Amino acid sequence: MLKYVKEKIDKNHWLKANYGIEREVLRVNGNGELALSNHPAIFGDKINNPYITTDFSESQIEMITPVFDNVEDVYKFMNSLYDIVTEEIGDEYLWPQSMTCLIYDENKIPIAKYNKNKKGKEAEEYRKKLIEKYGKKKQLISGIHYNFSFNERLIKKLYKQLKKEKESYESFKNNIYLKITRNYLRYRWLIIYLLGASPVLHDTYISNNNYEFEEISHKTFSNNKAVSYRNGKNGYRNKIDFLPNYNSVEEYVESLKNFISEGVIDSHKELYSQIRLKPKNNENFFDSLLNDGINYLEYRSIDINPFEKSGISLDDLYFIQVFNIYLLLKEESSYMEWQKEALENQNIISNFGQENVQLKKDGKCISRNDWALEILKDINNINDELNLERKDAVDLMIKKVKNTELTYSYRILKKIKEEGYVKGFLSLSKEYKENAYNNRFKFEVYEDLELSTQILIKEAIKRGIKFSIIDRNDNFISLEKDKKIEYIKQATKTSKDNYSSVLIMENKVVTKKVLENNNINVPKGNEFISLDEAISMMDEFIDKPIVVKPKSTNFGIGISIFTEKYGKEDLVSALKMAFKHDTTVLVEEFIKGKEYRFLVINDEVVGVLHRVPANVVGDGVNNINTLVKIKNQDPLRGYHYRTPLEKINLDENAKLFLKQQNKDFTYVPKKDEVVYLRENSNISTGGDSIDYTDDIPEIFKNIAVKSVKAVNAKICGVDMILEDYKDENSLYAIIELNFNPAIHIHSYPYKGIERKIAEKILKLLEFI
Amino acid sequence: MLKYVKEKIDKNHWLKANYGIEREVLRVNGNGELALSNHPAIFGDKINNPYITTDFSESQIEMITPVFDNVEDVYKFMNSLYDIVTEEIGDEYLWPQSMTCLIYDENKIPIAKYNKNKKGKEAEEYRKKLIEKYGKKKQLISGIHYNFSFNERLIKKLYKQLKKEKESYESFKNNIYLKITRNYLRYRWLIIYLLGASPVLHDTYISNNNYEFEEISHKTFSNNKAVSYRNGKNGYRNKIDFLPNYNSVEEYVESLKNFISEGVIDSHKELYSQIRLKPKNNENFFDSLLNDGINYLEYRSIDINPFEKSGISLDDLYFIQVFNIYLLLKEESSYMEWQKEALENQNIISNFGQENVQLKKDGKCISRNDWALEILKDINNINDELNLERKDAVDLMIKKVKNTELTYSYRILKKIKEEGYVKGFLSLSKEYKENAYNNRFKFEVYEDLELSTQILIKEAIKRGIKFSIIDRNDNFISLEKDKKIEYIKQATKTSKDNYSSVLIMENKVVTKKVLENNNINVPKGNEFISLDEAISMMDEFIDKPIVVKPKSTNFGIGISIFTEKYGKEDLVSALKMAFKHDTTVLVEEFIKGKEYRFLVINDEVVGVLHRVPANVVGDGVNNINTLVKIKNQDPLRGYHYRTPLEKINLDENAKLFLKQQNKDFTYVPKKDEVVYLRENSNISTGGDSIDYTDDIPEIFKNIAVKSVKAVNAKICGVDMILEDYKDENSLYAIIELNFNPAIHIHSYPYKGIERKIAEKILKLLEFI
Repeated sequence: MLKYVKEKIDKNHWLKANYGIEREVLRVNGNGELALSNHPAIFGDKINNPYITTDFSESQIEMITPVFDNVEDVYKFMNSLYDIVTEEIGDEYLWPQSMTCLIYDENKIPIAKYNKNKKGKEAEEYRKKLIEKYGKKKQLISGIHYNFSFNERLIKKLYKQLKKEKESYESFKNNIYLKITRNYLRYRWLIIYLLGASPVLHDTYISNNNYEFEEISHKTFSNNKAVSYRNGKNGYRNKIDFLPNYNSVEEYVESLKNFISEGVIDSHKELYSQIRLKPKNNENFFDSLLNDGINYLEYRSIDINPFEKSGISLDDLYFIQVFNIYLLLKEESSYMEWQKEALENQNIISNFGQENVQLKKDGKCISRNDWALEILKDINNINDELNLERKDAVDLMIKKVKNTELTYSYRILKKIKEEGYVKGFLSLSKEYKENAYNNRFKFEVYEDLELSTQILIKEAIKRGIKFSIIDRNDNFISLEKDKKIEYIKQATKTSKDNYSSVLIMENKVVTKKVLENNNINVPKGNEFISLDEAISMMDEFIDKPIVVKPKSTNFGIGISIFTEKYGKEDLVSALKMAFKHDTTVLVEEFIKGKEYRFLVINDEVVGVLHRVPANVVGDGVNNINTLVKIKNQDPLRGYHYRTPLEKINLDENAKLFLKQQNKDFTYVPKKDEVVYLRENSNISTGGDSIDYTDDIPEIFKNIAVKSVKAVNAKICGVDMILEDYKDENSLYAIIELNFNPAIHIHSYPYKGIERKIAEKILKLLEFI
Repeated sequence: MLKYVKEKIDKNHWLKANYGIEREVLRVNGNGELALSNHPAIFGDKINNPYITTDFSESQIEMITPVFDNVEDVYKFMNSLYDIVTEEIGDEYLWPQSMTCLIYDENKIPIAKYNKNKKGKEAEEYRKKLIEKYGKKKQLISGIHYNFSFNERLIKKLYKQLKKEKESYESFKNNIYLKITRNYLRYRWLIIYLLGASPVLHDTYISNNNYEFEEISHKTFSNNKAVSYRNGKNGYRNKIDFLPNYNSVEEYVESLKNFISEGVIDSHKELYSQIRLKPKNNENFFDSLLNDGINYLEYRSIDINPFEKSGISLDDLYFIQVFNIYLLLKEESSYMEWQKEALENQNIISNFGQENVQLKKDGKCISRNDWALEILKDINNINDELNLERKDAVDLMIKKVKNTELTYSYRILKKIKEEGYVKGFLSLSKEYKENAYNNRFKFEVYEDLELSTQILIKEAIKRGIKFSIIDRNDNFISLEKDKKIEYIKQATKTSKDNYSSVLIMENKVVTKKVLENNNINVPKGNEFISLDEAISMMDEFIDKPIVVKPKSTNFGIGISIFTEKYGKEDLVSALKMAFKHDTTVLVEEFIKGKEYRFLVINDEVVGVLHRVPANVVGDGVNNINTLVKIKNQDPLRGYHYRTPLEKINLDENAKLFLKQQNKDFTYVPKKDEVVYLRENSNISTGGDSIDYTDDIPEIFKNIAVKSVKAVNAKICGVDMILEDYKDENSLYAIIELNFNPAIHIHSYPYKGIERKIAEKILKLLEFI
């Protein structure tokens, strides 16, 4: 089959597929015991939050990624979901492993609580039935569900190449997924070997130790060979082993219906198979499968990988990408008893896979290593032929086959032997929790978006508001909940602001006129449309402190400030420079004082910020070089606007600036001595942002709100100069209104309280 | 005084002052009789319309310009007010002259009607008193009131140079205006001579002909020497001549209060002086004058100039600019009886000024010519010294002194002798009315603004909605009425649209996604962020008709269309070109059909337009050259977007395009043969805009409205392709939504009904 397709299909088509994962995880307290607290209310209604919900137990969180066309984003998204969740569970932790945490009393396991509506009642009923049949404890075993389908374009291309006579597209597509399913079942033992990560059990799980285990650590048991108890007979499995018919969708549906009518399972949901065929409409499972065909596949063999915050590694995701294609291309054997054999292989690998066990292949014995290397060789071949660039991931798997010590199961066994069950696992949870805190300002999968947008998306996801990236380059997203949809650009450009307000703010002259009309102080000034005109009026302002600036440019470009004595020539050259940037130039009085950014959302000042130039504060011991290094370690500091603050760069400018103070980088500032390293206070050159929200008198906040009301805006950054912020009678002037204020500077300042700005925006948008 | 100021003050400060005029005008029927109809309802509440109201009579319209810092704008604005008014009075005309139209029955003169509120009742009461005292007829005499004050900057500069010891700024400023007032009174005879334009009277006015007049035409009388009967004893004057005290504001106020307490006038408004001192707050006349000082001056000597649509010529406005400065700088004589002398001179000039009469100057005789030339020489001197560039206007006045035949009064006398009273004047009104129609799409004083904005301003003014230009370059205006203010940019960017909608429309990809989500047809397509990516996907669309375009540019730049067979290389170069204009390029299916612009305002399709390339339609006689010349005569056609349509230019492109049809400019098309002169249908290259609003089936209008609702917009131009507009089942696709649609194309199409779009915008903004 490979030879038919390799010429015709681009690499992108093979790998650009539809990927998504779900991960279950238990909340535990600091002792590794199941948390008995409620699911955090901030995650909203469990039934409607598409990202964060509960599974069987109230303490068992389920995190769900959206569908992505690449696995990197899936990986990063799951990491971010982890960050969101662990940040919201107080002093609890997320248990980083498939098998259960400490459970001293099975009866106390809280089942998930729901609203008392129809859906909620159904969910509770379903759980009660499960308890009767399987008990509560087994329900807490957690895993990764991997959802996958090929890109429709690929299937269409394959159809063109490979369809049988008179075969419909729908049937062709079903057959592709059925073949993958059968092959997945055949080769699932390899996935379990490579990704298996549940080789130890705690005493509170195996209440009836039947002496097949050794106590490898205090109250912790293993047979020292297991790869995945979760996938073994101690895992969460049906009472009997079902072998549904995977020859066609019709036969599959029929076999499932038979199981139900025989009363061995209650519904298709109770079939705990290693792979599931998924229809378009899950609510109407059988009909949709028959009518719409197989929509995607769900792989259910994957354990939680404790060494990954997300629970699955990117290398494993890369490997499964090629593995999927192998499953599609690999010819099937005609061996009749393949399902039983595959089940047997699953059991052997799960319970004893750390040894080079003997498996059965088409009725014949073959060692784990021989067969695994055979498969991996095939996969590498496919990778090469199709130019998939996944050789590294495949080679890593080859190493894991050759050297069991590289497997997760071996490493876990070792770690738990050394550290114990609770400490061994919880140390990882703690590490991830700290990592989440250090990541709190960003949303990794969208690290290319502006920080403000990342923060807003994160807040939306937390609250179960569905988001879509409408245009990634433009930071254009939509948020959707309960049939209400809002389109938002750059976090603060929303439907709540009217266009006219924005246009007023966009134009400095118009802003000033409107503010003046509303009796709000603005720097007095003149507007000139030609250099000659400006020069002819010069004697009106030549002796005053002034600012010369182009009308519409931003970021300080083309602006000159004259506060000291200056000459006519200085002014003329400043005017000339300003006219290079705009056809209209403003000459405004210079207002003495410090500049504060008031962020106003929905007529409320939600943050006040002041920026100071890059600086270090002495400790009497370290020199400037070292002090900068220490300051730069703050995770809020990074490069290129990826973080709320920028790392301080001791460059030529800093050197010159220090030289003016008769200092250099080796100077050791006295304790508490502040040494400035720049003149400008831009965050982009290492400046500090300092929150003043609680320090600024009400009167100035009211002025900020009044200014924003004057232009009829809902989200607005007000730049106000205050001569002395502590003095209620201080002179003030509004120098600019910004319709696209950054929110991250208030959310994550260098000093002061982190303000929940994203929440305010979601409130303005009436999502919460 | 001149020598003190000439070095220090820039020309701009002298001329940039505050100017405004008011003009009264009678509505008449086609026979020159006073119209008895009501003031047009479209002009709204008389008391609140700041531009168009009534004076004494319901048939006497008063037009009022805003204050401008230059006289050109005042002049143009009055012209535009004339256009607005004459367009709204049906088959009536505006009587182009100060003295009255035909009035056969004084009793029938309708006094202005008002709402029955307090202000309205006061206005009616006031009029009844005037009738008792002066009769109705005299009230109909109409004139120009010229309002003027210097720029505050100038007065401040003068104050610095010229203030007396301990003189306050307020007192200095009052003294400046008082001096001007006194000098105005002294020299007003010259203004009356130069601008006087009421030398004839109709029989229906002078009901008691006392034989001082000659019948110069049928029932039309003059003494053949008069310059301005309006300013003479036959004009509208107080019963006795008042000589208020102009030495100080206090004395002025006292003298007026005395007249009132003596019962000779009822209020300050009844003092029909040649000049009035105006306070800041006219409602509280005396107090405001005493407390706030003189705010501006009102010159009341100026007759309506029949030879000007506006009633006053630009040359006269230029002349008065320098005349004002003359009045300021000219030293006053100490002659005590100056007021009586000046009144005498006024009477002589008004009634006999066409002759070189003897006037009195400081008690001594001097001929009209000698004195006039002396004054004009002084004025020319000031013009030169201060570099005011008004020599042409002054020289024109010198000519009028030397040659009486150049005066308006002489020219009117001559015209009326030749054509008669009614026909002579009405021919001018008719000419102005036609001119107004040809100007209907523009508002002259703002000809630099976009047509759409001009149209909106015009509509606002008509309805008495106060407008301000907030930023002229940006076409940014505000509209205000009853304390409600709206800021509008480019006519269609308003507070009614939310910012998010605009951002959706601004981004073609986002627009498409949103429309698709709402089940609205859009051209299917792909978005590429690199040339390589686009090329790798090429085989998906290589054989289909497609459009390649940059994501965000407009005006067709960088767009390629492939409908015929094309090669891979063509596509690659089209892609390359598109990538030059944007980092994202769209490849979309090409939809067959014609493009229509649906203008949707407030969920209603208010106009549908289709554009066709520049063309001529044959008459079987003229060649293309001539047909184009004829077509270009349409006043809707102009240059550089100043008009709704552009003149067709028979350039090299047209030549080549005709050559492909084996034609040239001398080709004579058959009757009704359409010859296209271009391929593209842009209006900017002479294309025609054709209104289809009433022809397009409802179903497509509903789709347009649905599209606009999908992005939640209020004003939107929907570009829709229709294969066959007549067929309700025709295929359609929305190709673009425009948040800043031009309105002039619908308001003034080449063919079809002119749609009242500006009215719809004012309705959306809840002004009407």
